[in-house]
Amino acid sequence: MADYWAGRDILSTRDVPREAIEQIWHKAKKYDDAVTHKKSYDKHSGKVLASLFFEPSTRTQFSFQTAMQRLGGSIIAFSDADTTSVSKGETVYDTIRMVESCADVIVIRHSLEGAARLAADAASIPVINGGDGANQHPTQALLDTYTMFQKKGKLDGLTISMIGDLKNGRTIHSLCYALANFDCTIEMWSPPQLKLPQIILNDISEKVKVVELESLDLSNSDVVYATRIQKERFDDPEEAERYSYVIDAESVRKMKDDAIIMHPFPRVDEIATEVDSLPQAAYFAQEANGIPVRMAILDSVLG
Amino acid sequence: MADYWAGRDILSTRDVPREAIEQIWHKAKKYDDAVTHKKSYDKHSGKVLASLFFEPSTRTQFSFQTAMQRLGGSIIAFSDADTTSVSKGETVYDTIRMVESCADVIVIRHSLEGAARLAADAASIPVINGGDGANQHPTQALLDTYTMFQKKGKLDGLTISMIGDLKNGRTIHSLCYALANFDCTIEMWSPPQLKLPQIILNDISEKVKVVELESLDLSNSDVVYATRIQKERFDDPEEAERYSYVIDAESVRKMKDDAIIMHPFPRVDEIATEVDSLPQAAYFAQEANGIPVRMAILDSVLG
Amino acid sequence: MADYWAGRDILSTRDVPREAIEQIWHKAKKYDDAVTHKKSYDKHSGKVLASLFFEPSTRTQFSFQTAMQRLGGSIIAFSDADTTSVSKGETVYDTIRMVESCADVIVIRHSLEGAARLAADAASIPVINGGDGANQHPTQALLDTYTMFQKKGKLDGLTISMIGDLKNGRTIHSLCYALANFDCTIEMWSPPQLKLPQIILNDISEKVKVVELESLDLSNSDVVYATRIQKERFDDPEEAERYSYVIDAESVRKMKDDAIIMHPFPRVDEIATEVDSLPQAAYFAQEANGIPVRMAILDSVLG
Repeated sequence: MADYWAGRDILSTRDVPREAIEQIWHKAKKYDDAVTHKKSYDKHSGKVLASLFFEPSTRTQFSFQTAMQRLGGSIIAFSDADTTSVSKGETVYDTIRMVESCADVIVIRHSLEGAARLAADAASIPVINGGDGANQHPTQALLDTYTMFQKKGKLDGLTISMIGDLKNGRTIHSLCYALANFDCTIEMWSPPQLKLPQIILNDISEKVKVVELESLDLSNSDVVYATRIQKERFDDPEEAERYSYVIDAESVRKMKDDAIIMHPFPRVDEIATEVDSLPQAAYFAQEANGIPVRMAILDSVLG
Repeated sequence: MADYWAGRDILSTRDVPREAIEQIWHKAKKYDDAVTHKKSYDKHSGKVLASLFFEPSTRTQFSFQTAMQRLGGSIIAFSDADTTSVSKGETVYDTIRMVESCADVIVIRHSLEGAARLAADAASIPVINGGDGANQHPTQALLDTYTMFQKKGKLDGLTISMIGDLKNGRTIHSLCYALANFDCTIEMWSPPQLKLPQIILNDISEKVKVVELESLDLSNSDVVYATRIQKERFDDPEEAERYSYVIDAESVRKMKDDAIIMHPFPRVDEIATEVDSLPQAAYFAQEANGIPVRMAILDSVLG
Repeated sequence: MADYWAGRDILSTRDVPREAIEQIWHKAKKYDDAVTHKKSYDKHSGKVLASLFFEPSTRTQFSFQTAMQRLGGSIIAFSDADTTSVSKGETVYDTIRMVESCADVIVIRHSLEGAARLAADAASIPVINGGDGANQHPTQALLDTYTMFQKKGKLDGLTISMIGDLKNGRTIHSLCYALANFDCTIEMWSPPQLKLPQIILNDISEKVKVVELESLDLSNSDVVYATRIQKERFDDPEEAERYSYVIDAESVRKMKDDAIIMHPFPRVDEIATEVDSLPQAAYFAQEANGIPVRMAILDSVLG
């Protein structure tokens, strides 16, 4: 298979084949030393990444900007839509037409679902979705699956438990579609009003085994993927309380010895800090994987 | 003529001679491939541009930052005066004295007329006016005239129609002074309270033919230069309505076949999106010309 | 003495030995041409500085960013905590763990005392305190002492008068500890409620001669170090008025001929602009020294 990603927009993981995901893993592996040894490459010097964060996110922004700079490229960026012409009534189309003359590749984060698709339709250069509303966050799914591959050697045969807000969590949606390519089992646990959207459940159930957990029993998990439940999602504060959960040292003892715990960050209370030093805690390594994976993505897209 | 721009502040187009404008065009032409082939040059590596946007403008900021990076240079920037010491009562003079020790060249955007002049008086390094209140936006005029030169081959003999808010439009003011160097005709149409300031009209009328249009008749135009009319400029909303205009496919049919349509952006409703795909639409090309023109400007100023 | 600073966090000047301060001076001297000739060095190309300004400060931020870029390195930055995950409830610890995978070195400015220490405990890469609340601003003290060394040849034997808000001024606190290494006299003048904290006074009095001035008599000073008194520090506006001071040409005439005047900026009214052109005014040179000193610091820390 030729490089699947060359010159391509990355908007969703929905139709991304297994081989394409594996291509990113294998390329990312070569860039691990960008984190472990802070190594830089003079590979895309003179190239410009436009980092358009209509909705703030230091984490994704820093990860992309570091990836671009470790490849030798440079950045133009905004991190606040209020300072852009969008606040004067300009359309996203006009903004993107302006940006495409400046940059070689665009990453866009926006609060509206479909914004990245709109941008990709407007631009003649590759557009990467850095998160659009409650829809998708495909580069997160690539770094998430890379972390599972890195820690467990393969994804086939794994039981992956997704817990928390599965309805609004775009990282969950992108990860579901990515995992549907592999021979794994997905366990799900969430408050009733925050279940995975039916349309995604239908899509992935054809390809992968999905089990809805009655209670938060993680004893079968190879990978626990925890996400934040925002209190604002509930009308009733008591109900919010009922469904709040904390993974602490005690919960970890009930897991498999070689289970790993992941989280897309930011965390608030979902994982106690006492877990940070346990061997199961994979979330800091996962986060750091954003850099080699995004280097692999940028490198592939820039061709 | 030696390079007119070397080491010079660029505050206004008022006294800029024709040859200096043509120098920028000819240099910009060599940098067109920075847009068409996203080419970068390792010409000013190690140089620093200070991008001081006291008033937000992603478009001008991105254009300057891209130009500097395509030349191999780097950037220090702010895009929000609230995060600067100006909000603690510091003078622009003190801010500029600080910046001049950091950078090789400054671009400043400010809501107050004359701010760029103040900055230039304080700084021992070149200062470029990126727009000061309703006064001037000289680099916009350079890219505007470059676009006319690129699309029409020459400016002499052209009829250029400026429409919209001619009073507060700093791009209009700078363009008027630039065009006064050429043997062209300037047609003007605006609401009565948004006419070109008399002082500018007097200045340019000595050098160039100016015609005030009774109605929005663009049938003689070689270049239609449209600008936005902000509703807030009118006391009476009905009057705002009366003077709002839209250039659509129908309006274009009434223009000369080889007329071009320009706009300094952002647009809101002045030009219908159906016009975007017509051959007369030159505004996206115009916008993209910001990069080679600003590369030419930075290259000249840095010497 | 080997390079004291290699790989080290810079959180405070409290326990920094004299030799370490002198090491920075001597290295900074070699980088003076980064200001005088805007010279850049290709020494740390590929290295990334994370510039984390939870509290805005264009001056310190520009100075660090310029220093890093003049050394060939690049930057990831935020200048407004509201756009970070901290606003979603993330801890500084989690933010720093994220940043450490991106960058080679961190500079942090925060409104809370001790924030830099927290960051250093979380990070495996060097952390530089760019100012934490009313606590410390150690790189400012390094550039301040470098300026005294540059202008007066040595610090031993000097009488240095610190005036203004000595309680809340973190630059004052850092400078006091740095000066305690030298054989100099520190004169102090401040409103009664804005005196130097007793704990700092105790610490430095063991090592250096401290004199509290009854009135603002600067006739013995070799170095006048002026700081701003914020009106908000007083309950009574009349009292604020009583303790406000202005150094003007008249005050300078009463100083020693070869005295120098310093200020950490921003200034509001403490030093009249008529003083700017007098030979005693060292504050613009002091400010510009931020660049070679921070180049020396980054160069030493990066090793």
